[in-house]
Amino acid sequence: MPKITKFKIGLCQLTVTSDKNMNLAHARNSIEAAAKQGASLVMLPEMWNCPFSTNYFEEFAEDFDDKDGCPSFSMLSEVALGNGITIVGGSMPERRKNQLHNTCCVFGPDGNLKAKYSKMHLFDVNLPGDISLKESDTFTAGDQPTIVDTDVGRIGIGICHDIRFPELGMLYRARGAHLICYPGAFNTSTGELLWELQQRARAADSQLYVATCSPSRDSEGSYVIWGHSTVVGPQSSKIVATSGHEETIVIAEIDYSETRQLREALPLEKQRRGDVYQFVDVHQQKP
Amino acid sequence: MPKITKFKIGLCQLTVTSDKNMNLAHARNSIEAAAKQGASLVMLPEMWNCPFSTNYFEEFAEDFDDKDGCPSFSMLSEVALGNGITIVGGSMPERRKNQLHNTCCVFGPDGNLKAKYSKMHLFDVNLPGDISLKESDTFTAGDQPTIVDTDVGRIGIGICHDIRFPELGMLYRARGAHLICYPGAFNTSTGELLWELQQRARAADSQLYVATCSPSRDSEGSYVIWGHSTVVGPQSSKIVATSGHEETIVIAEIDYSETRQLREALPLEKQRRGDVYQFVDVHQQKP
Repeated sequence: MPKITKFKIGLCQLTVTSDKNMNLAHARNSIEAAAKQGASLVMLPEMWNCPFSTNYFEEFAEDFDDKDGCPSFSMLSEVALGNGITIVGGSMPERRKNQLHNTCCVFGPDGNLKAKYSKMHLFDVNLPGDISLKESDTFTAGDQPTIVDTDVGRIGIGICHDIRFPELGMLYRARGAHLICYPGAFNTSTGELLWELQQRARAADSQLYVATCSPSRDSEGSYVIWGHSTVVGPQSSKIVATSGHEETIVIAEIDYSETRQLREALPLEKQRRGDVYQFVDVHQQKP
Repeated sequence: MPKITKFKIGLCQLTVTSDKNMNLAHARNSIEAAAKQGASLVMLPEMWNCPFSTNYFEEFAEDFDDKDGCPSFSMLSEVALGNGITIVGGSMPERRKNQLHNTCCVFGPDGNLKAKYSKMHLFDVNLPGDISLKESDTFTAGDQPTIVDTDVGRIGIGICHDIRFPELGMLYRARGAHLICYPGAFNTSTGELLWELQQRARAADSQLYVATCSPSRDSEGSYVIWGHSTVVGPQSSKIVATSGHEETIVIAEIDYSETRQLREALPLEKQRRGDVYQFVDVHQQKP
């Protein structure tokens, strides 16, 4: 268990425009507002600094190693330090060695980058008459499951479509995660059918907290966003707090003592049949 | 794809009493009624021939190799043959080498046993003030994931608490399952929170049909049954048909062309990151 077992999380359901400077100022204000409301962990949406559209990803991308050329990255670091909070920085288009990644950066209260995760499961879909998108035309998929030890627990990171894959959540659980953060941008089609279901399922599968953060629906870009940033608890996968589709800040309390009690009452992890089948984690990363 | 890709399934949500002969007669009538309504696959609940209570399991158990001493087993075989249908025979307490198992038998239209599955994840729980149960005091867990090729598709079998473990469903999907049948007996506590969630999640995880069958709430035994026998489709995990908690027969249409279309539009199985992590199936069973 981490030092702090009960704390507030803030989800900034931001409106994203095609003006990057405006997005940065807006995100900064929203994070600071969440911190003022007591959040010691603040989370941003997938693509909070860039409209969710293939037309913008290349133009808005930053090289995080270029200290003078990554204003979004730098802002998150400053605001984490300035407010003494942990930030799960949603995701941003990242330029790395001539490739683009859909990347989440996690900053600690000291302003330092604690972890970086690039979306592993890109959203390639072709539902005629509904939605057609091929994220892999633009982005290169990451290959590193990422968990990070913070003041507020061991946090696993996934981005949007990653939530459809139980194995990523289960891997994080096996590595001791207390919370999985999924910045996301489900659309109205998949959102209504799957967004809440997937969050509750991942929480129930692994008896942990799940938090999601989406842009608001009136964000720019070709894609109609579902919204509904949510925190789901481990106690039989109940919803702790959620939102509509408008811009808002969701503040919710996370209490890991509930996780402990549930796992003692129903030890799912011990009941898994590792003798019959098990995960092999090729990278064998240990945090 | 199987010979038949569109068919009716019948779920017999039976009331279970402490009179075994009555349970057998009742199940026979219910299966025949489902067949008359056009079901070519009929499913029974977990423990359809025995009250869901540790007081009864030993007394009601049958040795399926003892041809004169397994009336429940024999009845299922007869009714499958007599009606030319496939039966997923819920579960029954089975005596095997001085051990008891919670076992599902699948019979083909020729009356032959096609597969036998013993519950792998036994339900041991201790939620103070809510529910306390230790199934492993009575039953020995099985260790054989089981899928069976039938006229109506390749069917994976799980029983009740097995549905909490995504890995079993994912293993069946990897082996080509079109449908997973989970006879179950969730109680009112876990039922309201998790029964529907788990079915929809397992269908969504693996893009296949999931069918569950429960006893009705007025069944005898110490345990208050949730009911709600349900068929969930692969198309974004929509509920095809469900019931309340009373005795009933649910008839639903299964159409595997929906499965095929969905998997083409969104090929989740191809998107899995087998390069990063994968299942190891120790038994390496192939159907």
